[in-house]
Amino acid sequence: MPTVYVTAPPDAAADLARALVEERLAACVNRVPCQSVYRWDGDVHDDEEVILLAKTTDERYDDLVSRVVELHPYDVPCIERFDESHVLDAYTSWVEDEVR
Amino acid sequence: MPTVYVTAPPDAAADLARALVEERLAACVNRVPCQSVYRWDGDVHDDEEVILLAKTTDERYDDLVSRVVELHPYDVPCIERFDESHVLDAYTSWVEDEVR
Amino acid sequence: MPTVYVTAPPDAAADLARALVEERLAACVNRVPCQSVYRWDGDVHDDEEVILLAKTTDERYDDLVSRVVELHPYDVPCIERFDESHVLDAYTSWVEDEVR
Repeated sequence: MPTVYVTAPPDAAADLARALVEERLAACVNRVPCQSVYRWDGDVHDDEEVILLAKTTDERYDDLVSRVVELHPYDVPCIERFDESHVLDAYTSWVEDEVR
Repeated sequence: MPTVYVTAPPDAAADLARALVEERLAACVNRVPCQSVYRWDGDVHDDEEVILLAKTTDERYDDLVSRVVELHPYDVPCIERFDESHVLDAYTSWVEDEVR
Repeated sequence: MPTVYVTAPPDAAADLARALVEERLAACVNRVPCQSVYRWDGDVHDDEEVILLAKTTDERYDDLVSRVVELHPYDVPCIERFDESHVLDAYTSWVEDEVR
């Protein structure tokens, strides 16, 4: 079962997370405020961002990625998939019921 | 070596994390405040939660999961295992010393 | 592509993150404030820390670890590697351009 790690600017993060749940691409999205330091166009920046951790299914992973790319304000968003090696059965069932 | 990802309500998170360390089921638990958007009973909710990231061993992973299920206020808690592909040797040794 | 999970004390986290980006060992580092409960010398402690999530390449992973060990104020820092099972192509390209 994939957890998808996405970073977004603070003013876009809540809407993006909500859209994924409302459109049944994710069962749950945890939003974690962070500070991000990165290099862009040769300069080092330090900005507020939000990490989204979206719980989805194998079947809908590609659709979730396409939708994030569509909704995301960045040209090159961080979208990464991490696979659990075990998940509590009851939680897996819940995710599979909520994501369609 | 597993990292276990658990979400908990804010008023239960500190006690849950502490219990895992006191009972030597985890060497360390990082608690990260977050906002969670999820669908429950047909409605989309947006609540404060805390992500717990518990550092444990292969040997005690099942016991840690059972204890979280026992202590957790939710019927269907998010409990997920992620396996590192490498860990600093000294840190692995420390986790293996603290978890019994 | 590895994401490296490091915990650091709040007064060292920003400098450590910035050094990794300035030295091109990471393309981006997300800094997430947390509370950490852990056992040390027989007592259970509960301290503020910061989780660093550094985006780097296979090629530079070992150098990043060595540099974190060098700069880190702890004797036994938490340094863990998690590998994505998929990353958006454009993001991978960006990381590979920024890390050298």
